[in-house]
Amino acid sequence: MRDFSADHRWLSINTATVRKSLGKDLPLPAILDACAARGIRAVSPWRDQVQAAGLSKVAQRVRAHSLELSGYCRGGMFPATDAGGLQAALDDNRRAVDEAAELKAPCLVLVVGSLPGALQGKAAFNDIAVARTQVRDGIAELLEHARKAGVPLAIEPLHPMYAADRSCINTLEHALDLCDELDPGRSGALGVALDVYHVWWDPKLEQQIARAGKERLLAFHVCDWLTPTTDMLNDRGMMGDGVIDIPRIRGWVEAQGFAGHSEVEIFSNRWWQRDHGTVLDLCIERHRSVV
Amino acid sequence: MRDFSADHRWLSINTATVRKSLGKDLPLPAILDACAARGIRAVSPWRDQVQAAGLSKVAQRVRAHSLELSGYCRGGMFPATDAGGLQAALDDNRRAVDEAAELKAPCLVLVVGSLPGALQGKAAFNDIAVARTQVRDGIAELLEHARKAGVPLAIEPLHPMYAADRSCINTLEHALDLCDELDPGRSGALGVALDVYHVWWDPKLEQQIARAGKERLLAFHVCDWLTPTTDMLNDRGMMGDGVIDIPRIRGWVEAQGFAGHSEVEIFSNRWWQRDHGTVLDLCIERHRSVV
Repeated sequence: MRDFSADHRWLSINTATVRKSLGKDLPLPAILDACAARGIRAVSPWRDQVQAAGLSKVAQRVRAHSLELSGYCRGGMFPATDAGGLQAALDDNRRAVDEAAELKAPCLVLVVGSLPGALQGKAAFNDIAVARTQVRDGIAELLEHARKAGVPLAIEPLHPMYAADRSCINTLEHALDLCDELDPGRSGALGVALDVYHVWWDPKLEQQIARAGKERLLAFHVCDWLTPTTDMLNDRGMMGDGVIDIPRIRGWVEAQGFAGHSEVEIFSNRWWQRDHGTVLDLCIERHRSVV
Repeated sequence: MRDFSADHRWLSINTATVRKSLGKDLPLPAILDACAARGIRAVSPWRDQVQAAGLSKVAQRVRAHSLELSGYCRGGMFPATDAGGLQAALDDNRRAVDEAAELKAPCLVLVVGSLPGALQGKAAFNDIAVARTQVRDGIAELLEHARKAGVPLAIEPLHPMYAADRSCINTLEHALDLCDELDPGRSGALGVALDVYHVWWDPKLEQQIARAGKERLLAFHVCDWLTPTTDMLNDRGMMGDGVIDIPRIRGWVEAQGFAGHSEVEIFSNRWWQRDHGTVLDLCIERHRSVV
């Protein structure tokens, strides 16, 4: 297992972590500058932030700072109520793949979606098996395009508390079942993004990480689970402030040969109220001490 | 699958559902009276409510109304930081078994606990594997006492969002693994309480219900998952108001031979503000129409 204590060479910042500073939106170029100024070597940007700043401008700024990407957030949200909706989702995912290619992202992270309408408070249907079929079919179609573009797809299993609205793939085992079905040859074109927040509770985690192996482990995300958690989406903790044994999970991942970045992704109303420089400095400190 | 539409013979009310009426605590005897007045034939009372009213008085009232029990809530909370704490938890669980026996409950529901201190906001340690070992050992010891008392133990897998503080057993598969380890003979002394709220999201649910079989399916609880869910503990929905396909899950359970009550257990700040009679009437209606 790599020693992170001496530097932050393998730290990546998911840009959602500092998408606000002192409660105000922080544009992506400013985030990239702040990361580069601290010797942070990698980031994982979000599509909406990229679009707001302009794709080519972002690509240029990333190159100017010699930043690497640890991923691109995000594709997915495949389910829909009709053929038109399914096609629109697929088209949008193809654009996400193309953007990821232009940014030279090592993978496109997929938050696959679940019951259509649930995120808006009113699910159009309650058969999660249908959503799962739509997700499988959507990934299967997208995979052809992604292979041609040279962008691996990383399915991110989300915590089961998001099963209704954000993702109907809620365990690493389920994500790997899908990988095995759609990419039995373990070609590297399809794998998982493993976020400790979503999977730390799983009694089969160690076993399934071993099953994933290096070919399927495309990204590793960290934050922490707070007790109590007061908001199901935006109360994620800074590493070390919660109950997740992050080094243990990182050890399992690295035992499979994973040698990529440890990406900090914290959605937090609390941290978004702080100055982004303070947050980034603390991410570096915690990366070295508790990840 | 049984037809529930014509009557509410198989409805049970978990008394937490109406533990408050119009925002005020409702004593257990009043809950029992209100259930009996509506032809509700079964209840599942909570220990704190029983203690407040007096065990023998409650037992007497249950008999006077010819009420059945569908379970007794609850034992568990096994993990601790030292031997004294583990022993205290075990002693308390033995008392819960004895109370369940006096009330002629068909099972004692176990919410097994997890990281000690997490429920109070500060976990004493973050090794969930240790908590899981303590839970296994605790159930193993309690099982001897429960067998003698003739009270089956029903492990309730809780939703993974409770993994830090309330239960480190978060899938039906994990609960059944434990049952198989501690009661390989499927004697009927150890099984599960299946609450749709905790397990509806699980892609292996149908498969694991089949694995459980009649011997292990000791209780069946219903409510609904709301979108959005605004509180991780007390924002459970009335059946039909959320996204859980309850009849489908009940079908899987009954296909294994389960023929017990369908127990309504709703923790809800919202419903606790309403009059308990209104809530009970709606439970009856929804039991007949959407369960």
